[in-house]
Amino acid sequence: MMREQEKILNLAVEKILNYLEENQNPATPVVNYQSANLLQENFDLSLPEKGIGLEESIPIIESYLNHTTRTSSPKFFNQLWGGFEITGLLAEMVTSAANTSMYTYEVAPVATLIELKLIETLNNIIGFNNGEGVMVTGGTNANMIAMLCARNKFVPEAKKDGLDDKKLVAFVSDKSHYSFLKAANLLGIGTSNIIKVKSDIRNRMDVNALESAIQLAIIDGKTPFFVGATAGTTVAGAFDPLLDIAEVTKKYNIWLHVDGSWGGPVLLSEKHKHLLTGSELADSFAWDAHKLMGVPLICSFLLVKEKGTLFEVCSSGGTDYIFHDDENYSYDLGKISLQCGRKVDALKLWLSWKCYGTSGYGARIDRLFELTRYVTEYIRDSPDLELLIEPEFVNICFRYHPANGNFSAKELDSINLEIREKLMRSGQALVNYANYNGQMAIRLILANPEITEKDLDGFFSSFIQAAIAITKS
Amino acid sequence: MMREQEKILNLAVEKILNYLEENQNPATPVVNYQSANLLQENFDLSLPEKGIGLEESIPIIESYLNHTTRTSSPKFFNQLWGGFEITGLLAEMVTSAANTSMYTYEVAPVATLIELKLIETLNNIIGFNNGEGVMVTGGTNANMIAMLCARNKFVPEAKKDGLDDKKLVAFVSDKSHYSFLKAANLLGIGTSNIIKVKSDIRNRMDVNALESAIQLAIIDGKTPFFVGATAGTTVAGAFDPLLDIAEVTKKYNIWLHVDGSWGGPVLLSEKHKHLLTGSELADSFAWDAHKLMGVPLICSFLLVKEKGTLFEVCSSGGTDYIFHDDENYSYDLGKISLQCGRKVDALKLWLSWKCYGTSGYGARIDRLFELTRYVTEYIRDSPDLELLIEPEFVNICFRYHPANGNFSAKELDSINLEIREKLMRSGQALVNYANYNGQMAIRLILANPEITEKDLDGFFSSFIQAAIAITKS
Repeated sequence: MMREQEKILNLAVEKILNYLEENQNPATPVVNYQSANLLQENFDLSLPEKGIGLEESIPIIESYLNHTTRTSSPKFFNQLWGGFEITGLLAEMVTSAANTSMYTYEVAPVATLIELKLIETLNNIIGFNNGEGVMVTGGTNANMIAMLCARNKFVPEAKKDGLDDKKLVAFVSDKSHYSFLKAANLLGIGTSNIIKVKSDIRNRMDVNALESAIQLAIIDGKTPFFVGATAGTTVAGAFDPLLDIAEVTKKYNIWLHVDGSWGGPVLLSEKHKHLLTGSELADSFAWDAHKLMGVPLICSFLLVKEKGTLFEVCSSGGTDYIFHDDENYSYDLGKISLQCGRKVDALKLWLSWKCYGTSGYGARIDRLFELTRYVTEYIRDSPDLELLIEPEFVNICFRYHPANGNFSAKELDSINLEIREKLMRSGQALVNYANYNGQMAIRLILANPEITEKDLDGFFSSFIQAAIAITKS
Repeated sequence: MMREQEKILNLAVEKILNYLEENQNPATPVVNYQSANLLQENFDLSLPEKGIGLEESIPIIESYLNHTTRTSSPKFFNQLWGGFEITGLLAEMVTSAANTSMYTYEVAPVATLIELKLIETLNNIIGFNNGEGVMVTGGTNANMIAMLCARNKFVPEAKKDGLDDKKLVAFVSDKSHYSFLKAANLLGIGTSNIIKVKSDIRNRMDVNALESAIQLAIIDGKTPFFVGATAGTTVAGAFDPLLDIAEVTKKYNIWLHVDGSWGGPVLLSEKHKHLLTGSELADSFAWDAHKLMGVPLICSFLLVKEKGTLFEVCSSGGTDYIFHDDENYSYDLGKISLQCGRKVDALKLWLSWKCYGTSGYGARIDRLFELTRYVTEYIRDSPDLELLIEPEFVNICFRYHPANGNFSAKELDSINLEIREKLMRSGQALVNYANYNGQMAIRLILANPEITEKDLDGFFSSFIQAAIAITKS
């Protein structure tokens, strides 16, 4: 049995290495684009009554890899993550082979200590001196649990008795992530009780507008309980001014959460951490390591300033079959989690951190900012491109807009959409787009530090070529 | 770079294979038990400023594996999962190397189709003819989303406006999982509005008691909206009578959810699927593949009978930057998910299913029932052991209770607790315990089909030896 397993594992490693090597080949398309309808015809999805046997798994793996979108390709700029770190793969292999669950120390002794070590480290970086935390299932989940903490602090009887008013209101910027709306739905607060505060010209929450909105809500008989500031917005990459916001939340006694899912790790860069000045004034903080820190999805944390909050807010009765009052009881992380069974997500970050060091992450982030500067200047120097937002982070929003062209706003939108589609369908590049102040912005994300200036030149060359082909036809 | 990666990956495979091989050696302890305090001294958790380099990851991996609880050891009976499947490891390696996110078809084309194929297949097995579903972060999460579906169906304005009464009440058996309490906290319903219906002598929800509880709640001015039936309870492994419960939920127009996190896959066994007769009458169903089907954690589904429900209940605004109205829009699974970024959990189950087939799962489950019979008879034949519950599934609750002993109830509890502790600390076995009707029950779970009758003989031999040592001292 072991011999067969060895053979098949070594074959799989070979296929994976081939795949990773192909990703680095400039001739490899970022995706062999096929619509869902077509791919269903070309890929055998069927689940047989009788198994096809282990040997057959290798060609299936190959085919799977051939049909994936190559997120570690230097042509992938689509999302707030990308690239490949071997330490992440190693850790996920070990995690899977050791297959355990994060609820109790007894079944996950070393993984529990590793998760706690990461939480302690992140709390130190944020500036939570008596903090706690838990790994969660993503930034969306972290934002929701933060709002739950705030809700149950403001309405302590909600946990046991439920909610019976519609008075709670939360405040986020109009550039914040949609997860706050999801949280309001889940928690019985209601999406209409999420007040979107307008942002300034730099896409940062306008603090005067925040204070006015809070005052208005109070006059309306509402109870402001939660402000969700964002460190690194999804489209523009803006950082809300934490110091100023914290002054307001302190004045009105409101829970301050920082959604640092995207920009939180900037705290690891000596050069750029000023973007998050004031992080220690928050009550909670969402941190994703699978975005800017490059470990495989999912690797997310919710950090909380005041120890004891998570147990108070998240624990429940009925757990005596699993949590036993023994010498390791205080290490049973399941007691403060909203999950029961939970995968080990800590090992990949911890192993990567061991190998690259804190300074490695600093260098990684500085390099991404450097690449951003390169792209920004490239766009500024190009008569055919328009920079739509002055980048504060590694999000670059721009569009095709030739100086000598004569296109209407609507035409520009549709040309840029077409360029993006053409690049995707040809596999030349995957870059996303978003509506930005009513116009279509191409959003290029620099999350993969292996990307070079040459790769970026190649991207823009394809982009302009596609634009010319489209506008000439 | 590739050469270095190849070397390190092959070394990691070697270490993992050694680990798996050791797990099969009868001399290997299930855990090298150390308290959290001690382990922190013996394991270098530190995160350095300067990285230690990739080469060093191999001894770290070895050390991590040596300190894990060996969940694929034939001495591990502790939890509702266990064992090792090579297909699971292969798929997790590929998932990690291809590192993508389940929100959109464009970044996860083949993984999206695979997840949809699994959902279609599971719906067919449950009997949902026009069903839908989504992969979630565990059974606890599935139960919560099911309750959210029911809440928003009963109070459609809750999503937008929030909850403003405390009238909603849900019903579960007194043997159900604690996740329903967590869900009630989260959703603003309140844990006191979860009515625990008493169970019968076989630990199944008492349907008459359910109907009485519903009637009482209505008289009280409450709104019964949700019944959570359990297929495979956590301690006893009981299956609530779905047909009878469905009659009640239909009569009173209440959402019927089945928590099949543990027992759902019994539907794959021709011989035992009768335990879930009536599954097609439910409105939603939680299914974990990482328990009875043996794939690595987490691999969970929420299946819903009526297509369109999840979008209605879970979607939010503010998503135009990510979900684009193109030809693949209907395949963007993020629209119906409560997560934004989401790991690919589908590949491991799909690949395993391909290799072993539906019939392979049937045989696996039948074998676990067969092992249960063996253990049951072993306990019955032993004058020193007492079977506390007649097993209906693969949970065996028993205790040390020698026929010729003269121990009080309290002494029996403490002796059994001590036996369990002794087995864990010596690494001879890991088996859990629970309070069952006021007495301490050893709960042995048979989730790993590689376990043999000989392994079980070995377990009981260690158990009795420990008991004798404890009672003699």
